[in-house]
Amino acid sequence: MADYFAMDHDELTAEKTALEAQYKKFQGMNLKLNMARGKPGPHQMDLAMDLLKMDNYITDNGFDARNYGELEGLPEARALFADVFGVQPGEVFVGGNSSLQLMYNLVAIGMMFGFQDSPKPWGQVEHRKFLCPVPGYDRHFGITEEMGFELISVPMSPDGPDMDMIEKLVAEDDTIKGIWCVPQYSNPDGYTYSDETIRRFAALKTAAPDFKIFWDEAYIVHHLTDEIIETPVLLNEAKKYGNEDRVFMFTSTSKITFPGAGISAIACSENSMKYMCKRFSTMIISYDKMNQLRHVRFLKNKAGVLAHMAKHRRRLVPCFDAVKTTFAEELTPCGNIAHWTNPKGGYFISLYVMPGCAKRVAQLCKDCGLTLTGAGSAYPYHKDPDDSHLRIAPTYPSLTEVETASALLCVCVRLAVVEKLLADQQ
Amino acid sequence: MADYFAMDHDELTAEKTALEAQYKKFQGMNLKLNMARGKPGPHQMDLAMDLLKMDNYITDNGFDARNYGELEGLPEARALFADVFGVQPGEVFVGGNSSLQLMYNLVAIGMMFGFQDSPKPWGQVEHRKFLCPVPGYDRHFGITEEMGFELISVPMSPDGPDMDMIEKLVAEDDTIKGIWCVPQYSNPDGYTYSDETIRRFAALKTAAPDFKIFWDEAYIVHHLTDEIIETPVLLNEAKKYGNEDRVFMFTSTSKITFPGAGISAIACSENSMKYMCKRFSTMIISYDKMNQLRHVRFLKNKAGVLAHMAKHRRRLVPCFDAVKTTFAEELTPCGNIAHWTNPKGGYFISLYVMPGCAKRVAQLCKDCGLTLTGAGSAYPYHKDPDDSHLRIAPTYPSLTEVETASALLCVCVRLAVVEKLLADQQ
Repeated sequence: MADYFAMDHDELTAEKTALEAQYKKFQGMNLKLNMARGKPGPHQMDLAMDLLKMDNYITDNGFDARNYGELEGLPEARALFADVFGVQPGEVFVGGNSSLQLMYNLVAIGMMFGFQDSPKPWGQVEHRKFLCPVPGYDRHFGITEEMGFELISVPMSPDGPDMDMIEKLVAEDDTIKGIWCVPQYSNPDGYTYSDETIRRFAALKTAAPDFKIFWDEAYIVHHLTDEIIETPVLLNEAKKYGNEDRVFMFTSTSKITFPGAGISAIACSENSMKYMCKRFSTMIISYDKMNQLRHVRFLKNKAGVLAHMAKHRRRLVPCFDAVKTTFAEELTPCGNIAHWTNPKGGYFISLYVMPGCAKRVAQLCKDCGLTLTGAGSAYPYHKDPDDSHLRIAPTYPSLTEVETASALLCVCVRLAVVEKLLADQQ
Repeated sequence: MADYFAMDHDELTAEKTALEAQYKKFQGMNLKLNMARGKPGPHQMDLAMDLLKMDNYITDNGFDARNYGELEGLPEARALFADVFGVQPGEVFVGGNSSLQLMYNLVAIGMMFGFQDSPKPWGQVEHRKFLCPVPGYDRHFGITEEMGFELISVPMSPDGPDMDMIEKLVAEDDTIKGIWCVPQYSNPDGYTYSDETIRRFAALKTAAPDFKIFWDEAYIVHHLTDEIIETPVLLNEAKKYGNEDRVFMFTSTSKITFPGAGISAIACSENSMKYMCKRFSTMIISYDKMNQLRHVRFLKNKAGVLAHMAKHRRRLVPCFDAVKTTFAEELTPCGNIAHWTNPKGGYFISLYVMPGCAKRVAQLCKDCGLTLTGAGSAYPYHKDPDDSHLRIAPTYPSLTEVETASALLCVCVRLAVVEKLLADQQ
């Protein structure tokens, strides 16, 4: 292997032939691998099975968790998430198995009715817009795309999104109604917003009185090193500027206990809580409090959550390591054909390949039995302007599968780059 | 006791004094009784505790119910509800713990996007309207009230809503977008729509191409007699007229297993299923399939559901009997001061007191420690034009409590009527 950018036409052609032979070998293996979604594996879910060993659903207060009631969630579940978020229990709402659904329903409430501080429902705002730090989470973007918002990309850096750009945009344009953020171990880069970024979010001066920050703490306890990274709590910071009604923080246990059967939570101001509960009370009597109680008894508190997450970490670190080591061994020698992130937590590695090659890489992988998230998915409208980004999710497959998938992925990256370099020469 | 309408002023005054003495006795008991909501009691929920004895969450097909996936619900859960509804599994969507939330989200989809057959989103239809058979379920009406529909009352009879009126209204007005129905053991009257009513619903000619029937089969297996009443399945009937895209049927296990932690389902046409799932996929990855699998293994099929519901019945019939027997003993001798329904299933008895007295009765009960559903709640905007209707929910309290509550209720009805008759004489 040598720097592809130093190769002449013949050398590139030879490299292409060699890579095609390697690719063919992988094709002969009839692989069926999936690194598309941030999906925990069975060995992670097995860690939480004791959660189900419970036959008494009466809470310490004598409340029967089986029946209707307690829309805001069981008090003990609110206390658990208050501990995890770093806020007060009265600022916490505990929902069902999907934080995405909570987000969707909040944006839908904005669309149909507006919030307590809205001049009018968002659905009546022409040219309504939403800010999207990129690359970001496709399902976030999908909600606001479907609801007719123009999605405005904001570039990410290791410190978080470009705050100069955000401050300027929201100060000028009252049709910008919100922003999607994954502040800790961001999806997909794995970056954690800096304290200064969080402070600037808390202090934002916005033209829209009803600008909302959708702050998805999906990976708040999902550390991949023994360094427990903790950052200022946006809701608390926002209070210092009187901006607490602007903040909706979210989290869930989807990647702590069971992806499809965990519990979710919102942290927000008491004003927002009151408004939100009034709206939610038309929609649902209460969420599944039996599952809330199971989670409380199993996880207990933040310390319990962190202890449980350490078990996850020990099972996930080898898979992340396999990806990164293979990239370093197989891609670095080829010159500047790709770079990737080195997350300290979360569920993903971002792989940036030479511009114009990401779609081709994803296609080559797919044709060989390895499914990746569609190239471009991390950008609004699924359009990566550079056609460079790929999101790698190494959690679901076994370690052996991740090793195989990483090796195949490197062959595909190199092949796509060589193809492009040869095409560019013509 | 004698017919109040035959009493002169002095007799009524004496009766009032006697009733006030009885009322005072109840006040001395410091009661805390609640017959407001259709809430199962602990003895009902205890019947389903075996549902929780499960440690294997892999389905027969090898699917891991703990993880993400299967938005439409586990195939075995879809089959269970297909059996209950009387439709095909491919026509069934299985959701989370709340059918109300499914209804809300469907109306919200109508509001924001419209349906596959909508000329435009409902939110953009000025003077949009929804039909509400009355008395009906306050939470149904609340959804469309909040979403800005004008609610049009349609009178109920023991055969169902007034179909002449409905046929006329929907044929003429394309701003009427739907109707709320509880076709079996209706909330609150306990009436079951006749076959002819169901056929006319299936055949409706509507001016709106996107008219939807929200058909809430909340009490489809909630028989209170050993007569298993079954009616034509609206979705199947609608197919005969090419109207199947108009039908959304709902049910849930909230009053079969656990009110707050059951599972819910929709039955609809394949067209509607496709459209709905596309919209829902933006909102949620999948509902709680572990709870779906628990329910499937516990209830098995329709026969299993019916066997379980027979256990409920044996525990509920005495409470319904206590209410009706007390009414007959205490109210009938007073002349035509009240009449009530005699449901063969469901969760409620409708009590119609002399017009102008319902609010007063509810207030008298409340002041004595017995909470009823607010008078008027069963009507759009909570306004009963006759101030006559009270919804009695005898399931949650114990039998002894129901006996006490019924006796108190009768004193309050009689007192309110006597007060009114005396006031009318002046």
